[in-house]
Amino acid sequence: MSIPTHAEREVAVAVALDLRTFLRLRPRRDARVLVALPSIGVRLGWEAAPLRDLRAALPGDLEESKPPSLEQLDKLREFAGIAHGAPAAESLATLAFLYLYLAISAKYGEVPSMDIVVWSELPTGAGLGSSAAYSVCLAAALLTACGAIGCPLEEGKPTARWTEKELDLINRWAFQGERVIHGNPSGVDNAVGTWGGALQYQSGKITPLKRVPTLRILLTNTKVPRSTKILVAGVKDKLLKFPAIMNPVLDSIDAISHECECVLETMAVNPSLEHYPVLEELFDINQHHLNVIGVGHSSLDQLCQVTALHGLHSKLTGAGGGGCGITLLRPDTPSPVVEAAKRDLITCGFECWETSIGAPGAARVSTSSI
Amino acid sequence: MSIPTHAEREVAVAVALDLRTFLRLRPRRDARVLVALPSIGVRLGWEAAPLRDLRAALPGDLEESKPPSLEQLDKLREFAGIAHGAPAAESLATLAFLYLYLAISAKYGEVPSMDIVVWSELPTGAGLGSSAAYSVCLAAALLTACGAIGCPLEEGKPTARWTEKELDLINRWAFQGERVIHGNPSGVDNAVGTWGGALQYQSGKITPLKRVPTLRILLTNTKVPRSTKILVAGVKDKLLKFPAIMNPVLDSIDAISHECECVLETMAVNPSLEHYPVLEELFDINQHHLNVIGVGHSSLDQLCQVTALHGLHSKLTGAGGGGCGITLLRPDTPSPVVEAAKRDLITCGFECWETSIGAPGAARVSTSSI
Repeated sequence: MSIPTHAEREVAVAVALDLRTFLRLRPRRDARVLVALPSIGVRLGWEAAPLRDLRAALPGDLEESKPPSLEQLDKLREFAGIAHGAPAAESLATLAFLYLYLAISAKYGEVPSMDIVVWSELPTGAGLGSSAAYSVCLAAALLTACGAIGCPLEEGKPTARWTEKELDLINRWAFQGERVIHGNPSGVDNAVGTWGGALQYQSGKITPLKRVPTLRILLTNTKVPRSTKILVAGVKDKLLKFPAIMNPVLDSIDAISHECECVLETMAVNPSLEHYPVLEELFDINQHHLNVIGVGHSSLDQLCQVTALHGLHSKLTGAGGGGCGITLLRPDTPSPVVEAAKRDLITCGFECWETSIGAPGAARVSTSSI
Repeated sequence: MSIPTHAEREVAVAVALDLRTFLRLRPRRDARVLVALPSIGVRLGWEAAPLRDLRAALPGDLEESKPPSLEQLDKLREFAGIAHGAPAAESLATLAFLYLYLAISAKYGEVPSMDIVVWSELPTGAGLGSSAAYSVCLAAALLTACGAIGCPLEEGKPTARWTEKELDLINRWAFQGERVIHGNPSGVDNAVGTWGGALQYQSGKITPLKRVPTLRILLTNTKVPRSTKILVAGVKDKLLKFPAIMNPVLDSIDAISHECECVLETMAVNPSLEHYPVLEELFDINQHHLNVIGVGHSSLDQLCQVTALHGLHSKLTGAGGGGCGITLLRPDTPSPVVEAAKRDLITCGFECWETSIGAPGAARVSTSSI
């Protein structure tokens, strides 16, 4: 998933990446719940009975409309034996699972004993919304397991989509998972993970775009670590220091998001090549603006320069300040050009995937097609 | 001289470079006028009598308030034997001299026979206002020679400045020289050449800044040729194509100019080091914006990257699209850092001068101090 910018007043367009996260759920005959997250080296296992006791002992409500309370999270942390200073990814993944497992079973009825494995094509901790993808998978699986949502796979079809109403429920519970992991998330990542395609985020309101084309991209991880909190504080500082200079830049970023939406909706109907130079120009302008507001990084500049040498246009994605960038590929960009760009990016020490954006959201997949 | 940007509605700050243009005038005993411009390989010479005949034969007025007419310029071209397709710098320098010589002698009385040599530390044709510096020198010299302005050098003092009123006259005639050379110049370059320091240009109005500090800079010529006309057309195209995106960028550039003026005026009073990070940030933001409006160039990006590796901040100057960039140096930037940056810039194929901005304008200099 990808969100161009982070200042709160702005319009942002978030698009679904086609790097997928998979969850496999298998019922067990014994009264146990096992969870394996191989990409972060986590294996969890509990008896069903103490989980039921824990649910009964949790203070307050476990509703999808209420943020998880600190007391609830402390209790879960204690139950799971999470020490202070334990690796964040492991602890947060465990807490999110426990919270969703208990809250969903409390509301919709017992979740059967099961084996869960979650793995992902997304790198974790790169600002690409891997935690949201995990939360969407958990919510969809647990809601399906306890019968709150349906979605039977039809004979011979490899995938099935849930109804709008069911997706809405998945999204609301996935948001709870994100709240456990991030405290105060925007909800954009879980929404784009649930619905796929692209959506507009403005002043807390999330609106899916009607029609979205699938666009070829290179996704590049500079592997430079960044702190979203520090970046956002930096943007606010710049706004306070130079309001007359920075506010117009935010206006211009808003206008880029609107223009981008228009172009994407037009391309979904008329996928002519003529739209690509416009998108490329918007990429370039946006990347300059993101540098101006202070969420750039020399590694991202390098990414842009390297791809520019191959005639390709890139911009940072996610929080910025390191992390990932995306490079737009045209439908007719020759494969040797893409390969040469990838080679040069890898030479910089970056990781690189050829994928697409505007991909579909949560779906049930037959195990034979994974 | 240096002007950050070119879109007409914008506020720009122009500052005087301390790369000086010199004119030496020596009276002759024979009735001849000789002009040598060694930097562009020009040597001109005329008898005074045919110049007088030419003046009488020129159609229309030769007033400093009226732009030179096409008929007048054609007549001068014919007299000087300038063929179509002759090198532009030579032809335009010749025409500007003839026009100013004839117009000033027509208005203020005979200019004596003389030898004139003009040479410059400024590169020509690099968008640094070398033509304006030439026009200012010619206007000051010719007005002095015919007695229209004074400015005696005091014993023992190496330089003398003209009065405000005299500088105004020099500037108005220098503008005529610029009109001969450029057709429809803004008048900023001759103004900053005449008055020195820095000035604000907004909607055709030129206002000198009250107090200006002298700032150390590196001036770098990428030697990439550019066409101001094509660049300005490109900026206009972008404005028409993406008004909601581009207009705020112009607003932000305006705000940068205003902020820059404030910082410069503050620094003139309180030259504390704390102002430098602010100027550096303004340089960076402005450079991004100039790229967004389409007057950047990969050579200028390279210039910025190379100096950034030495912790220095650069931006394009002049028209952009190639041409020159300036790099801000702090008073305490160590000499080895500057030398290393210069070396790297020269390795890129660029030319590089260490100089300063906020320098004084037109002055009379004793020949012993040149």
